Amino acid sequence: MSKLVIVGTVAFDAIETPFGKTDKILGGAATFIGLAASQFNINSAAVSVVGGDFPQEYLDLLSNKNVDISGIEIVKEGKTFFWKGLYHNDMNSRDTLVTELNVLADFQPVVPDAYKDSKVVMLGNLHPLTQLSVLEQMSKKPELVILDTMNFWMDCALDDLHKVIKEIDVITINDEEARQLTGEYSLVVAARKIHEMGPKYVVIKKGEHGALLFNHDNVFYAPALPLEEVFDPTGAGDTFAGGFAGYLAKTDDFSFENMKKAIIYGSTLASFCVEKFGTERMENLKSQDVQKRLHQFKALTQFEIELT
Amino acid sequence: MSKLVIVGTVAFDAIETPFGKTDKILGGAATFIGLAASQFNINSAAVSVVGGDFPQEYLDLLSNKNVDISGIEIVKEGKTFFWKGLYHNDMNSRDTLVTELNVLADFQPVVPDAYKDSKVVMLGNLHPLTQLSVLEQMSKKPELVILDTMNFWMDCALDDLHKVIKEIDVITINDEEARQLTGEYSLVVAARKIHEMGPKYVVIKKGEHGALLFNHDNVFYAPALPLEEVFDPTGAGDTFAGGFAGYLAKTDDFSFENMKKAIIYGSTLASFCVEKFGTERMENLKSQDVQKRLHQFKALTQFEIELT
Repeated sequence: MSKLVIVGTVAFDAIETPFGKTDKILGGAATFIGLAASQFNINSAAVSVVGGDFPQEYLDLLSNKNVDISGIEIVKEGKTFFWKGLYHNDMNSRDTLVTELNVLADFQPVVPDAYKDSKVVMLGNLHPLTQLSVLEQMSKKPELVILDTMNFWMDCALDDLHKVIKEIDVITINDEEARQLTGEYSLVVAARKIHEMGPKYVVIKKGEHGALLFNHDNVFYAPALPLEEVFDPTGAGDTFAGGFAGYLAKTDDFSFENMKKAIIYGSTLASFCVEKFGTERMENLKSQDVQKRLHQFKALTQFEIELT
Repeated sequence: MSKLVIVGTVAFDAIETPFGKTDKILGGAATFIGLAASQFNINSAAVSVVGGDFPQEYLDLLSNKNVDISGIEIVKEGKTFFWKGLYHNDMNSRDTLVTELNVLADFQPVVPDAYKDSKVVMLGNLHPLTQLSVLEQMSKKPELVILDTMNFWMDCALDDLHKVIKEIDVITINDEEARQLTGEYSLVVAARKIHEMGPKYVVIKKGEHGALLFNHDNVFYAPALPLEEVFDPTGAGDTFAGGFAGYLAKTDDFSFENMKKAIIYGSTLASFCVEKFGTERMENLKSQDVQKRLHQFKALTQFEIELT
C-alpha cells in the first residue's frame, strides 16, 4: 500500500439541476477525490485551504473517512472558495453562475511532512503552478503523479500547464479538453500528442460515454454505467480520478493492466456520485454497494468470443 | 445456420467529407447489410429495387459475396434511388443535399419463394408499411425479426412505425432517435419504454460512443473502436446491423448471451466500414482482418477484477 497526497479545492458548491437545487453544500475536487479514495482504506492526505466560515463537521467528515486533513489550511479571516452552477436538461452542459475564489486566490499548498515521501500524488484541478509547487515539496520523486486539469487553464495559463504536464505520469482530461489541448479532433491522435508532452498514460473522460485509457499503442475503454437518472453530475470527474488514484495507491502496482482495473473502479465510484446532490451518496457508500456495482460493470462489458 | 432476408435500399450515394468527395457510388442499407452479413458465409437474400441505370457490376458484387439478388427488382425505365450528403468536420453531423426517391417511391418488396421460410429477417430502414409487407409475405413466422429505422419515419409515419415495431424482436436505433421515439432523455428509461412497444431487445447505437443492448434488466455495452480517422461514416449503422444479423443467422442462437457477441461483431465490422468511402473497405475485407480486430476489441474492453 502507498501513501496518497491529494491536492485540490475544498469548497462550497450551490447546485441547480432539473431535479432541484441546493444551498451551499460541501464540494471541491479534493473533497470528492478524498471520499472516493477513502473506499480503499489507504493513508491519504488532502492539501487545500478553507476559510473561517468552513464548518468543522465537513472537516470531521473527511477525517472520519481516514483522510488526513493536517494539510488543509484554515484561513480564519477568509472565506471558503464558492462555486454556483446550473445544469441544463441534458445534464451534459452547465453554466457557472458564481465563482468566488476567496482564500483560494492566495493558496500556497503545504504538503504535511509525513506525506512528503508518498508514492502517489493526485493533483486535482488547480492553477498549474500550484500543482507544480506540490511536486517540488516532495522529499523524493513520487512513483506516480496523476494530474487533472480543465479548459480554463488552457485558456489563461497554457505555458504553465505545459510545465506541469511535462512532470507527470497520468493526465485525466475530458474529450473536449483533449481536443482543445492538441488541436486534434480524433481522440487517438490527441492522446498521441499528449504522450509527446510527457505523460505516459492519458485518460480521456467522456462523461456518460465512459473513459479511455491510452498508453501508446495500448488502449482500454470503460463505459459509464447506463443510469436511469443522473441527479447531479458535480464531482463525477473528481470521484473518477479519486477512485483511480485510490485503487492504484492501494494495490501499489502502476502497470497498464492494473490501471485498467483502476479505471473500472473510478467509473464505478463515479456512477454512485451522480445519484444524489453533492457528496451525499459518497458519504454513505458501503463497500458491498461497490462490489455489487462492479458485478454490474462486468456483466455490462464482458463477453466470450472464440478467437483464432 | 439460418437463412437471412435483408430488406432495404440499394442505391447510389454521393458523399462529401472533409477528406474528399465521390461521384455516384454504390450505397444503400441493404447493400451495407448484405456486405457485412456476407462475412459469415450464410444464405442471405436482398429484397430491394433499382432502376435501369444501375450497373450490373454492382449486382454482381453482391452475388459474388453470396447475397441472393433474385429479390432485387430492376425497373428498366426507372432511376435508382439517389442520396447525396455532406459531412461536417466532426463527422457526427451531416446535411442531406439531395434525396431522389425514384424507383423507391413505388417499391413493393417481393420476398423470393426460397426465402419465405427464413428464420431471420433484417428490415433495413424503409417506410414502416414496406417493412411490414415483408413480414406478411413470410410463409411462417420468423424466429428473429430485426428492424432498423430513423427519425424521418417518426416525423411522418409514426402510427405505421408503431405497427411494425409491435411485430419485431429487435430494434436498432440511434440515441437521438430513441429519445425522440419515447420522449425520454435517459437511454435506460427510453429502452424500457421501447420494450413496452413490443421489441424484447433494444439496441441503441451511439456512433463513435458504441452501442447498448437492452433486454429488460440485462444490459450490454460495446464501445466503438477508437480510430485515428473516420474517413466516411456512411453505412456504418447498416454495417453494424448486418454484422449483428449475420452473426445471429450463422450461429442460430438468439439468446442474450449470443446477442452480446453479435453486437461485438457488428461493432467490429462497422469499424472497417468507416475507413474508406462507401462500400470500398467492406468489398475487400478478409476474415483475418476481422479476427485481428476482434482481438483488439477484446484487449480494449476485457479486464480481470476479483469480485466478492
